[in-house]
Amino acid sequence: MDRADLPTPVLILDRAAMDRNIAAMAGFAAARGLALRPHAKTHKSAEIARRQISAGAAGICCAKLAEAEALAAEGITDIHLTSPVVRPDAIARLVALNGRIALSLVADHPENVAALARAATRPLTVFIDVDPGAHRTGVASPEAALALADAIAAEPNLRLGGVQYYCGSQQHIESRADRFAAVERLTAYLASVLDMLKTAGHAIPIVTGAGTGTFAIDAELGVLTELQCGSYIFLDREYEDCELTGGGAPVFERALFLDATVISANHATHVTLDAGLKAMATDAGPPRPIRPGATYRFTGDEHGALIADSLPKLGERVTLQPPHCDPTVNLHDAYRVVEGDRVVDCWTITARGRGT
Amino acid sequence: MDRADLPTPVLILDRAAMDRNIAAMAGFAAARGLALRPHAKTHKSAEIARRQISAGAAGICCAKLAEAEALAAEGITDIHLTSPVVRPDAIARLVALNGRIALSLVADHPENVAALARAATRPLTVFIDVDPGAHRTGVASPEAALALADAIAAEPNLRLGGVQYYCGSQQHIESRADRFAAVERLTAYLASVLDMLKTAGHAIPIVTGAGTGTFAIDAELGVLTELQCGSYIFLDREYEDCELTGGGAPVFERALFLDATVISANHATHVTLDAGLKAMATDAGPPRPIRPGATYRFTGDEHGALIADSLPKLGERVTLQPPHCDPTVNLHDAYRVVEGDRVVDCWTITARGRGT
Repeated sequence: MDRADLPTPVLILDRAAMDRNIAAMAGFAAARGLALRPHAKTHKSAEIARRQISAGAAGICCAKLAEAEALAAEGITDIHLTSPVVRPDAIARLVALNGRIALSLVADHPENVAALARAATRPLTVFIDVDPGAHRTGVASPEAALALADAIAAEPNLRLGGVQYYCGSQQHIESRADRFAAVERLTAYLASVLDMLKTAGHAIPIVTGAGTGTFAIDAELGVLTELQCGSYIFLDREYEDCELTGGGAPVFERALFLDATVISANHATHVTLDAGLKAMATDAGPPRPIRPGATYRFTGDEHGALIADSLPKLGERVTLQPPHCDPTVNLHDAYRVVEGDRVVDCWTITARGRGT
Repeated sequence: MDRADLPTPVLILDRAAMDRNIAAMAGFAAARGLALRPHAKTHKSAEIARRQISAGAAGICCAKLAEAEALAAEGITDIHLTSPVVRPDAIARLVALNGRIALSLVADHPENVAALARAATRPLTVFIDVDPGAHRTGVASPEAALALADAIAAEPNLRLGGVQYYCGSQQHIESRADRFAAVERLTAYLASVLDMLKTAGHAIPIVTGAGTGTFAIDAELGVLTELQCGSYIFLDREYEDCELTGGGAPVFERALFLDATVISANHATHVTLDAGLKAMATDAGPPRPIRPGATYRFTGDEHGALIADSLPKLGERVTLQPPHCDPTVNLHDAYRVVEGDRVVDCWTITARGRGT
């Protein structure tokens, strides 16, 4: 099938570009002796997770338990959950999944550690989530980290897997120098937390974190032992706007696109596309049209304006680079996999909408 | 099942409140002699469409052909498409659907009218989409409207269904007086377009448009004959922030909610919920927590901050009123239907993700 024959709007995956991104990140991690555990919240796809693991990843991360359940059902057997699991019904599901795959998760509160310990029927690996200052999740002080480590160590059914430290707010600082300075300061704090834990006698086998904006900086700073990057496989517009190179970071390629069609062409300034905010996430600004001089503006649930001096015609196809890949992928049921203009496969977005 | 036992984040529908909203809008339209054709882009649900039709609606609107196909497959037999259908593959699907249900759609370009006429295998009803000034879709002048009417009339396979005029940009003007003034001015333009069409001999059986922000104003101005309102069934935060009463408009009730859970509680100022921008649309600001004095801030794909003086505890459930209902619904697979705190049903979101 030709790409031009796909009904639009449609999510397009350039498999060769993605595979090069996967290999580049795997090579970077291996060369620096770091483990790689890519975040599957980006792609929610068993096929892509398998490709990452085949290329050398230790396993994957998931943001939600339902995401992990969906990917485990498709054969992914090593998953780390990057958010606390708190509800009793969710803990029961977690315990069931822990019997079937190698599973770990984070905790940031002693009540939650106690609840996990009560529910666990076999050893469960728990990481201490340390707050880098965003105050979203994570323990808020070195003392709280130590108290949590002690609590985990005291529970026969729990194993301390290590520490998680994800500097989410820093990933998209556009200047690399500014990003480096911010992460360097935050990493000094992480080192002090790790010192306190180790001084108290806790082994910290894994220190996991990093994203597509900071992994090379994290590698240079040398405190993390495992990288959780997700978006590098696609290179969305938001990350492409950042200075990602430097420190030996690979150059990633655009691999994810949205094809749309001109459905109204009555003005000299712009045309209207059939892709709006039900086709792409709006939290990170507009997509980038793959068309010289063109810009895009969201104009509704199902519409967007393509603004350019030289406009495409009614019915013409326009390709967009999505603004923020993770929530954009979550709006679609499948990737249409292309090689050039030929559609060669269709991959289900396994965990699309699995938010619980 | 108890509502408190549902895994979160979860989309909650208060059926009784929604049914009262459906009845109130149906009563309003009937009392003014207007047809009601609610927009199903809001709910994407065959069950809700059936309830609207049972309450007196003439049929429904859909924004996308795939949405119409999904709802037609569930027994909805009278659908108007509010956006042009332009691609040859989409026109072929449209023609196939036209054989199975009563179908109409809009056009705004003579090339598109010609393409529809070439493809149609039985009479197809086409409305002239008139641009109210947003320059999104629609013909851009009375002269262009007349040329399109002439083009439709010249095609034996096409029927002129009437005119569509949707003032999308005006729906959320918060002050009713300002909204009235804006719509009054735009309606004078619509009247001039209709005059030109009628003077030229075109019958205009239906003039369709309006939304939840303007329907009572449109009724008072007396030019539209059919109302396309969608969001009234749920009353999202964005519409509740507008002054919707006046002109005999019914008072709508909140019927759509998102239940979330506190998964991190390490700060005096806020807690973190398990619902972020994969659970709710971000284009219209934050949701409204159903909790006195509390506010919500998006903090990531899977997280949000609940900010309050008096905070819920770790594991506690928090109910949110979604900010913008249409794209929020499109993120979920089902409505959990509640009566009070009891879950009484689960309705599939029939056309979720059907964007082509």
